[in-house]
Parts: sequence; structure tokens; C-alpha cells
Amino acid sequence: MEIRRDSGARPLNLGLAGFGTVGRGLARILDENRDNLKLRSERPIRIRSILVRDPARARACPFPPQAKICADMDDLIRDPDIEVVVELMGGLEEAGRLIRGALEAGKHVVTANKALLAEEGGELFRLAARRGLHLGYEASVCGAIPIVQTLREGLSANRILTLFGILNGTSNYILSAMTSTGMSFDLALRQAQELGFAEADPSMDTEGLDAAHKLTLLIRLAWGVDYPFSLLPVEGISRTAPEDIGFAREFGYNIKLLGYARLEAENSRGRPRLEAGVFPTLVPRNYLLASVGDSYNAVRVEGNAAGSVFLHGRGAGSLPSGSAVAADILQIARGARPNNLGYVLPELPQAEILPPQETSASYYMRLTVLDRPGVLRDVAAVLAGNDISIAQAIQRGQKDVVPLVIMTHATTPVNAARALAQVKATGVLFADPVCYRVMPPSA
Amino acid sequence: MEIRRDSGARPLNLGLAGFGTVGRGLARILDENRDNLKLRSERPIRIRSILVRDPARARACPFPPQAKICADMDDLIRDPDIEVVVELMGGLEEAGRLIRGALEAGKHVVTANKALLAEEGGELFRLAARRGLHLGYEASVCGAIPIVQTLREGLSANRILTLFGILNGTSNYILSAMTSTGMSFDLALRQAQELGFAEADPSMDTEGLDAAHKLTLLIRLAWGVDYPFSLLPVEGISRTAPEDIGFAREFGYNIKLLGYARLEAENSRGRPRLEAGVFPTLVPRNYLLASVGDSYNAVRVEGNAAGSVFLHGRGAGSLPSGSAVAADILQIARGARPNNLGYVLPELPQAEILPPQETSASYYMRLTVLDRPGVLRDVAAVLAGNDISIAQAIQRGQKDVVPLVIMTHATTPVNAARALAQVKATGVLFADPVCYRVMPPSA
Repeated sequence: MEIRRDSGARPLNLGLAGFGTVGRGLARILDENRDNLKLRSERPIRIRSILVRDPARARACPFPPQAKICADMDDLIRDPDIEVVVELMGGLEEAGRLIRGALEAGKHVVTANKALLAEEGGELFRLAARRGLHLGYEASVCGAIPIVQTLREGLSANRILTLFGILNGTSNYILSAMTSTGMSFDLALRQAQELGFAEADPSMDTEGLDAAHKLTLLIRLAWGVDYPFSLLPVEGISRTAPEDIGFAREFGYNIKLLGYARLEAENSRGRPRLEAGVFPTLVPRNYLLASVGDSYNAVRVEGNAAGSVFLHGRGAGSLPSGSAVAADILQIARGARPNNLGYVLPELPQAEILPPQETSASYYMRLTVLDRPGVLRDVAAVLAGNDISIAQAIQRGQKDVVPLVIMTHATTPVNAARALAQVKATGVLFADPVCYRVMPPSA
Repeated sequence: MEIRRDSGARPLNLGLAGFGTVGRGLARILDENRDNLKLRSERPIRIRSILVRDPARARACPFPPQAKICADMDDLIRDPDIEVVVELMGGLEEAGRLIRGALEAGKHVVTANKALLAEEGGELFRLAARRGLHLGYEASVCGAIPIVQTLREGLSANRILTLFGILNGTSNYILSAMTSTGMSFDLALRQAQELGFAEADPSMDTEGLDAAHKLTLLIRLAWGVDYPFSLLPVEGISRTAPEDIGFAREFGYNIKLLGYARLEAENSRGRPRLEAGVFPTLVPRNYLLASVGDSYNAVRVEGNAAGSVFLHGRGAGSLPSGSAVAADILQIARGARPNNLGYVLPELPQAEILPPQETSASYYMRLTVLDRPGVLRDVAAVLAGNDISIAQAIQRGQKDVVPLVIMTHATTPVNAARALAQVKATGVLFADPVCYRVMPPSA
């Protein structure tokens, strides 16, 4: 008599591409939480093959013992036993080729590649839909926070009114360190690099591009439209000075790098008209978002039925991102039906972008001016001439050159930019003006 | 030639039981967000019948025009055109009969009935599993917050270490009002009742039973075990005094009514050993949880891979709860495969409950004592005799009877209770002692 050693369910074989931070986290979760996973899905999950650039290179973290190591992506794509390709190698060209190849070969795909999905996602989602395959990407936006699923399913019956959040952990770590200690951007960046929160080249994070990739994916989920990545306004934090953080605090705000999107209205064909962008923003200190410290991520979504829903967690890291990858894999193991975008049509329309002159915000402006009589009057005259009214102003210090800090009432970004250009043209500025959006206390 | 007026997909017909707050919210969402729902699912969703106690009663909110109104639950159960029964009438006996009948008739069920699922859920989930049917209950825990789905899917690859949160909006409204204004429990309750946040009989909310129902469901999702509702320790907030809130603030805490569960370890058969309960708790003021104001709900889950994930939103109300009900319905319309509990086995084992003497916590104790020399010494001696060490103490006031407030280091609830009984036996107390758990600053 033969003794059956397991439930007999067919294992779900993974082809893992990349064995970096997230890949190793996934391998560890599949190993250490094996008993838990058995309770969750009848099918055991196995890493069958791992694709790496150089299989022979010595590694601090050993490969899982049962995995075949390969250097050719066709070894994953052509292996009939692999049901799911897990793309964790990053980059655009090769990763795109792998995902396309895997989907064309009828394999499900799970990926953490926000850049690829933001810039070329449309085609990949159509391909997955045509083949009836999963293209899972929970890990690509805010790591362990289940924001993809929340938009696709939890809030699916809502018209989403606004969506904004702290979508990049590195820049939040830097801003939080600057806020709590008063240190400079450069020093905070160096500290983040030493602690492993920032890459050697941090510009994707600090210039807002990583947040912009994630925002593009979130817009797609929230409104069912493609917002062309290249059209998204993006501003980073590398010019943010400790004094801006200090003045913001005096006014009752923390500066956070926000990805922001808002539904203005639907156009005549029912297509959403959106305002969106990534920019440093003054967030009222009594908001949960203002309290998001360290390298945490958070997203706040306002639905017309649910009201506001706020999610907070680890946006990156080996195990948090691995947790999201593993959740997508489990859904496949459980036999869930693919629902990659949350919309019936695999071809999403382009977003209609609200022209800047139709948007409005309050602004924080810091002008570095010569301390002589009449400067405030001249600046105020330029603002008034551009229909901008001043809510609060601080001019302080006894030196030749002093900061003049202004909080405006709501105006359009067009007016704000024109006013600042005119102030600059008067010759009173000793440095480029700083201008940040201010989130209204009732948002 | 015939012109097709819609996509031709078969509508998903609902039988709605109950047309109260949540039922009306659902009807409004299905109507007002119709265009959005069309993008999300090929199948139009229609309320075919509404079951009410008295169809003839005049109503402020009219029934949806196309719905048949009935008073006999068999009209829902026996209607072959109804695919989903939406149970929003509440209560145990009748609601249980309806859900059982619907499942036995092969219909999917969506419900917001936390009491029923907490107290008799096991049988209903087994029945649904046997028939391969959806038994959706996102709306039954924390309204619009997608915590059911997050535990079942988003964090499914994690061993959950702790789970706690503000699970009842009414009591949070009361505690928040007491905290911000210093008003008494009775006054805050009356205010909550006037604003519609509390029922005429508020005891389910203020005595912690509603939170306990939700905690029972969350424990089932997080650990795959049935924690018998009757064994869950529950303490409400009706005895919480403004002075407790004031002293807590002096120590750096806000008092919140928390549902709390923690995995201590697995027993030899791999079954989780849990510590759980509902009780007023001192939460460090720098925690996000401490900032949850108004009638909001929030849950914090710590997974061994994801780290901490914090979700915040509206825990009740017509549209927020309706949003969660509609999300479950959409999943059915989309043809999602049922995954009601998140576990393979439809029969969950009983939780193993950690004996109180194996748990530990710091405590806040407020003793109302006679202001005479030696009282603090006597109390301290009793505490020391029970192995309890004092972290901080405040004795204040010039009256005959003064509060003596003590924050202890970690001890067992058994020691704490014995110590308080001994203090009481010495005859120095002028009122029953107050004793609340304190959440450690690093939890």
C-alpha cells in the first residue's frame, strides 16, 4: 500500500527572474511560512527556476536548494512546468521582453516593476487579458500596502474623488529626518544611503519619478484611464531646505512628497477629467498623512460612497515587498479569476488632463530678498496684480538678505508661476523662489 | 433588425432583506454609481426584491422603482431569478434562517451581520463551502475599510503576529469627544445619540460587544481558528471617567477602546495560541491609532513578512457600509471564485486561548484613596507583594479623598487583579479601582 505524503495537489511552479532584495524575501517567505501557506491554498508553491545574470557569482544568500539556476530567460519561458513567471529583475527592456514572452507562452506573471507597468503597461495588460492570464503587480505600488486590491475590489463600487499619498519611502525617510532634526537634504540623503534606504544614485526616488510611476498605476486603477507617464507633472525634494521645513512647521504643516490625483468632473463622454502630479506639499499637521514617518508609505483614497480610506505600511524592503508578491502568487494558486485592472475593457481610454489654469491651490512661497524698505510692498503688489491674495506672511531676520515667506489663498498654478516670474524680473530676489502647494485643512 | 440596447449580459438579481440605513445606502450606490459599475462588471446589478417587515408602512426613502416588495423571506429564497441574497436586517434568529435558506437554495449571500457570523458563523461558512457559494461579509467589520479582504488575500502569505484596532465607531466618538472637551461619558453619549452615532440602547457599542463580534471575525481571518465568542474577555467604556482621560494624557497616552489579539506561539500541533480581548487601553499618543478621532475605525495588523499595515476609514454609515456590501456583490458579478474564509478547510479548529497568567501588560491604575500619610506606602507594599513594580505614580490634590494614579511595569493580569483586591481589602479605597491596559511604546 502506498502512503500519500501530501494532499496530492499539483504544485504551482514559479520561474523567478532576479534574486535581489525582493526575490530573496519571496524565497524566505515561501520557506518560513510554508505551514501557513498550506492552510491558504491546496497547491504547494515551489520556486522551480531562478534566472540571474551570472549564475556562477558567489552570493551571501544561497539559492533555494531545489531551484534550477539559469541565465537565459527562455529557460523560464519555455519550461512547460512553470505556470507563473515572477519578474523581480527590474529595468524596462529585458523585463518587458520576459513578461511579454511569458504571457505569450500562456504563463501568469507577477511583477514588482512599476516603471515598466507605468510606461508600457497598457500593452502588457491587453496581452494578459487576451490570454486570460494573471498579471499581478501588488508589490509594485507601496510594497506591503494592499492598495492595488483595495482600488480594484474593495472600493470598486465608488466613484473615486481624490487619491493622494506618500508613495516613496526614500524621500519620506529624508523629509522625516530633516523634519525631526533640522538636518540638510544632503546629510539626510547620506544617512539614508548608509542605512540602505537610498540607492547610490537616488535620483529616481528624490526627483519624484518613482512616486510618479506608482501614481500612474494608481490612477489607472482608480479611474480606469491611462494617464501618459510623460505628461505627469513631477517635482522632487532635492531643493527642499531645512528652513522650508521650519517655516512650514510654524504655519502648522509638515512637508511631504505627495503623489496627488483628483477627479474634477467627467467630460461629455463620461471620461474623467483629472488633475494629477507629484510634488512637495505642505500637509496640515493634524492629518494622519503628516504623521507618516520614517520610510513608511501611505495612501488616502476618497470615494463617493466609502468616504476616506487611509492605508499605511512598509512601501519597500525584502519581506514587505515579498509579502505582496506572495499574495499575488497565492491568488493564482487558489485559482482566482484574473482581474488585473478591475475593469471590463482591456483597453483603457486616455485620461483627460485638466489644464493647469482650471486647477487651483494655496501656495507656500519663500523668496530670498534684500532686506530694504518696500520689498514686501512690491512683492505684494505683483501678487495682487496676478489675482493672488496673501493669507499669511513672515519676514524675519536682520541680515542683508532675508527670507520672505508667504502663504497664499487659492489661486491657479499659472497665476502663481507668472507672479513669481514677475517678482524675479524686478531683481529683488537673491535666489530662485521656492513654491510648494498647500493641502487645504479640509481635504 | 433588432437593436440591442445593452451588452446583453445577464443581470445579477439581488434579493435585499432589510431597507434600513445600509440597505438604502446600497440602493443609492447601485443607482448613482451605475455608470461606474458598468465599467467594473459586464453584468448589470439589479435589486429585484426587497424583504421588509411591513411593506405598507409609509417611508421617507422610497423603494427603488423596479423592486418587488415582500414580507415573506421565502419570496427571496424561492425566487429562481435571485442569485444573491443581501441580508441587511440584522438580528440572529431570522437572519440566520434567511441566510441558511438562501445558501441551501444555492444562492450567494452578502451580509453585514457581525453578530450572527461571530456567534454562529462556523456553520454558515461550512454550508457555503459545501455548496461552493459566496458568503461575503466585508461590511460586517469596520464598514468601508477593506480589512476582510486584506486579511484573506493581501496579507495571506504572512504569519500574523498581532492585530488590534478601534472596531467600534460609537465608542470612539464618545472617547474622542471626552478627550477633546473633557466632558463626561454620559454627556458624550447623549451628544452621540443626538448626532445619530449611537442607538437609543447603546450598550452593544459602549459595553464592547459590537467590537467583540468584529474581533471574533478578524481572529478567524487572521489565524484560521474559531475563537468562541462567549470566551472573549470584554470590557466597555461606560465607567471611563474624564479624569482617567486627563491622567492618561499626562503620561502621554490617549484612551481608546481596542479589540486586541496576539499570537503567543503555536502549540505542538501547530495551532495558534492566542491572547485576545476588548478593553479600554492607553495608546501612546504618537501612534497613528491614538489619532483616530470622531467615529472612525482603524485596524493595525502586524505580519511576519509585511510588517505593520494600518487601515483607517468609516466603520459604519449608510454609504460606507453600502460601499462594502456593493464591493462583495461586484465580486460575485465578476464571477470571482468564492474564498470566504481564506483557508482551504471549511471547518476551522478552535483557537487555543492563552491562560491569563501567561500574558503580561503594563497597567494604569486609578485608586480613590483617603489623603492620609502612608497610603502610597501601603499600596506600594501590596503591589510589591504581588511582584508588580511601579513605573510612575501621581498623587495630587488637597481634599480628603484624592486620586492615586499608578503606571505599572509589565505584570500578569492575574497579579494585577489580586493586588487590586488586596488593596481594596485594606479599606483605603473610596471607590472601585480603575485598571486599564497600557500599550507599550514599541508595540
